[in-house]
Amino acid sequence: MSQCNRKYLALSGGVGGAKLAVGLAAALKPEQLTIVANTADDFEHLGLHVSPDLDTVMYALAGIDDPSRGWGLADETWAFMEAVDRLGGETWFRLGDKDVATHVLRSQALHTGIRLSDVTASLCRQLGVAQRLLPMSDDAVRTRVRTDEGVLPFQDYFVRRRCEPNVSGFEFHGIDSARPQTDFMQMLTDPALAGIVICPSNPFVSIEPILGLPGVQTAIATSPAPVIAVSPIVGGRALKGPAAKMMAELGRPVNALSVAECYQALVDTFVVDRVDGEMCERIEALGIRTVAESTVMRSLEDKVSLAHRIIERLEES
Amino acid sequence: MSQCNRKYLALSGGVGGAKLAVGLAAALKPEQLTIVANTADDFEHLGLHVSPDLDTVMYALAGIDDPSRGWGLADETWAFMEAVDRLGGETWFRLGDKDVATHVLRSQALHTGIRLSDVTASLCRQLGVAQRLLPMSDDAVRTRVRTDEGVLPFQDYFVRRRCEPNVSGFEFHGIDSARPQTDFMQMLTDPALAGIVICPSNPFVSIEPILGLPGVQTAIATSPAPVIAVSPIVGGRALKGPAAKMMAELGRPVNALSVAECYQALVDTFVVDRVDGEMCERIEALGIRTVAESTVMRSLEDKVSLAHRIIERLEES
Repeated sequence: MSQCNRKYLALSGGVGGAKLAVGLAAALKPEQLTIVANTADDFEHLGLHVSPDLDTVMYALAGIDDPSRGWGLADETWAFMEAVDRLGGETWFRLGDKDVATHVLRSQALHTGIRLSDVTASLCRQLGVAQRLLPMSDDAVRTRVRTDEGVLPFQDYFVRRRCEPNVSGFEFHGIDSARPQTDFMQMLTDPALAGIVICPSNPFVSIEPILGLPGVQTAIATSPAPVIAVSPIVGGRALKGPAAKMMAELGRPVNALSVAECYQALVDTFVVDRVDGEMCERIEALGIRTVAESTVMRSLEDKVSLAHRIIERLEES
Repeated sequence: MSQCNRKYLALSGGVGGAKLAVGLAAALKPEQLTIVANTADDFEHLGLHVSPDLDTVMYALAGIDDPSRGWGLADETWAFMEAVDRLGGETWFRLGDKDVATHVLRSQALHTGIRLSDVTASLCRQLGVAQRLLPMSDDAVRTRVRTDEGVLPFQDYFVRRRCEPNVSGFEFHGIDSARPQTDFMQMLTDPALAGIVICPSNPFVSIEPILGLPGVQTAIATSPAPVIAVSPIVGGRALKGPAAKMMAELGRPVNALSVAECYQALVDTFVVDRVDGEMCERIEALGIRTVAESTVMRSLEDKVSLAHRIIERLEES
């Protein structure tokens, strides 16, 4: 197989996954890269279907994301939100004026029976995203977070309650009957598949819903393609989001080893950050080849560099 | 009945009706005025329920309308629309960033089973509109325009095709099974009802759908309250919109007399503009008391002044 025929599949949540997706997109030809994004964070808000992770990846690949905010679009304005406030609507989940267009058009398409996959493909095409971005499923899976304040819908926990309640577990409603997206599953049996990348995303609420879809773990395990995962925990902290806080509340040590344990059955290679180099040996003890790299992606160069090193590791596997 | 207990009912389309509604609102106590707006122009756009006439009246009463454009909100921005364009969505019907909030919240409420009347009341309350604004019906009535290009949904004819096709008639889909809004019908039997005002709106597509709802004409005819109508045709032209063009295409003389003929069976008093004073005699021949007033409402003073003269005429009836 020539290098250019090799295909790569990345499993992603929001911000961290989107950064690595941008790196992989720069390192590979568009037709080589498929990104599967978590949709268990999706929800109906103001009657609109919002897909936070899909959009974060899509906007990042289109180069129109807001890197400082970590969600939504660059140069966004907020007249819609101010009008919603004036009209007494809910404002705890903020939607920018341009971002609303995505949700309105997606909702309209979904209501007419178009699949989320096809809506996503259409939006990507319009935004000039040449890589294939897939929702993990066209069926609804909805994360609920078990907390000391009760079971909360994910965005209620994540945005409205700012991850403050203590977490004791997760429920993925609908996951047992959800079908993994067709092209995603086909790719896992594609002989050209040269590697599966688990992005540095939240293992509990971003990656677990993807892996928990019926048949996905088996398909990954039986795929000849090597699997590499990047730790979202660096130096005992999550770079973004509640992964570290969740880990602590679930009674696990807040470190890359705990992440590796989540993926133990699936990954061939685990990437920790250089600051966690001393952890490699303990992770290797799980039977996982472990490498230390610079995983913190601040600049485009960081993203591309990490992507190249991941591809190299997959080629070595 | 003391003057302050007298109630008035105004039947309105968009711009012209909204202007007179503002005048009546200034001339009366809030609890004296109910405006019933045409909803046969309503449509689903980008999956959102848009109620152009209701919103034009609502925004005008709230003092946040854009008087130069004649629709939508003042100080509007267009980031949403530009994003819709970029995403390949339809842009022929323009929705401002603030205006979209109205449609999103209304659509969300309607989808949860809330009546259009109740959504409208809630939006009005939030915007500080103290007068009662009612949709003509909580059931869907949809105007279709018979033209030389075929039968067009109203907004296709009105906005997309800019009223260019020649009109041969109108269809009001759903009107036979639509129930006039409850409070509207109750008001027609209210002993406190001191007058019914047919605003200077398009007789064919704004007023006719209201009057065509089952039971409305009979209820108006049997109501002891006098009925006054204001001509939207002034000096052989419509001040706004396609009323004059429609009239010509329907083979009727483009003048106030043709408007009066539309309302012949219902109105006690017909108001023409001073420039059409010579037409009074011919309209009187229809058995309608006819008065000439300054009906062109440019300033707030014009609106309030016309409203006062209408109220005076109703008191004389």
